[in-house]
Amino acid sequence: MQVKALVFDVFGTVVDWRGTVSRILAESNELSEDWIAFAEEWRAGYSTRTVQTAQTGQGTLNVDTMHREILDEMLSSPRWSHLGKTWDEDKRAEMNLAWHKLDGWRDSSEGLYELKKRFIIATLSNGNVRLLVDMAKHANLPWDTVFSGELLGSYKPNPKTYLGAAHHLALPPSEVAMVAAHIKDLRAAASFGLKTIYVRRPTEDSAEERAAVKTKEEGGEVDLVVDSFLDIIPAIDGRK
Amino acid sequence: MQVKALVFDVFGTVVDWRGTVSRILAESNELSEDWIAFAEEWRAGYSTRTVQTAQTGQGTLNVDTMHREILDEMLSSPRWSHLGKTWDEDKRAEMNLAWHKLDGWRDSSEGLYELKKRFIIATLSNGNVRLLVDMAKHANLPWDTVFSGELLGSYKPNPKTYLGAAHHLALPPSEVAMVAAHIKDLRAAASFGLKTIYVRRPTEDSAEERAAVKTKEEGGEVDLVVDSFLDIIPAIDGRK
Repeated sequence: MQVKALVFDVFGTVVDWRGTVSRILAESNELSEDWIAFAEEWRAGYSTRTVQTAQTGQGTLNVDTMHREILDEMLSSPRWSHLGKTWDEDKRAEMNLAWHKLDGWRDSSEGLYELKKRFIIATLSNGNVRLLVDMAKHANLPWDTVFSGELLGSYKPNPKTYLGAAHHLALPPSEVAMVAAHIKDLRAAASFGLKTIYVRRPTEDSAEERAAVKTKEEGGEVDLVVDSFLDIIPAIDGRK
Repeated sequence: MQVKALVFDVFGTVVDWRGTVSRILAESNELSEDWIAFAEEWRAGYSTRTVQTAQTGQGTLNVDTMHREILDEMLSSPRWSHLGKTWDEDKRAEMNLAWHKLDGWRDSSEGLYELKKRFIIATLSNGNVRLLVDMAKHANLPWDTVFSGELLGSYKPNPKTYLGAAHHLALPPSEVAMVAAHIKDLRAAASFGLKTIYVRRPTEDSAEERAAVKTKEEGGEVDLVVDSFLDIIPAIDGRK
């Protein structure tokens, strides 16, 4: 696998959105709420909307704006309207920034520093630039550059994202590997010619999906499967 | 000056294009040529074309492509056609990459590491992303992210560049400072509301221009004047 650049999905692959968002919400609010459920509903709204926008071109390309729209809708819904009555503008703006402060997985920072010595490493995230830059400073993620959906003109899985990143890196797609904990992201990347590295993260994809992902050598569909960013270089070298 | 991000001109401000390009050319070719003149003619072609494209929208937004077009024209011109007869495709492609390997000024890397602790630091260069990423790895420039003309849809001094960077950083222009060794770049940045930091570099702008640049406090037009990136934080703190 002769790749020169690795581009990373971020939410879930590099950082623990569920754990961090629910913790930040719990720390600033009543502990008795189910903040995991709150974070998951917020995230589900994001997943639905980014795919819709990728397909139709309708809707904001800025994830901060999108997160806030979803938050406001949630706070008007029956399940969370008791919070909506007390969360004013400042509170909503502050909670919306939880997504800028996500913690990396245990191997993320150290793994990226190692990978950066051999490859160009960049985000390829639907998140907006400021969100990704704030997160990189918070979690010590040494990106060579930040590619975001808004910069590239659409969200994943629109081809503008995968092919835009390859274009700006001046590489053929076959010399760029997409790194993600979501098989759908890798299927889209592969369909546009990128190489694919699947990272099993305990809370991303279902247990069944994670177990089913195999490398091409094993008769599966991705180029590599790893459990940590620290395993990527050994896995690449092992295949040579 | 309450800025949250610093965006940097790169060629001349962060790296020594004249010294590095002429050295790389001299190392791979006849020493008897005037490689400084060659580098300056190449750079002059770039300066003319980027301004034209910023104004008209005509021409490539990729600086690697532009550098190659100018190189090919130079090698067909009377002054350099003796080189053009022997430089084949591979040689031209190799020489074109000299612009990816520019050396930082003595204070650049250390200064950026210091500034990165307090500010978001990003390129705001006409150079393409791959060129800027390769240069950052070569010269150890720890950008938080890379903004390029091609990514933002035009070259400086088009407003898409200055205002695009501020937009993607989710900051009002007044909270972003442009750092450059070229007063024209800062005049354009200021006209769109950015703060301005002028760095005197011995080979950028004319000696008269450099001497004439003053801060607003001194009756001039920029916010700060420094001789090194290491002087930026003391200068900002001194103004408080």
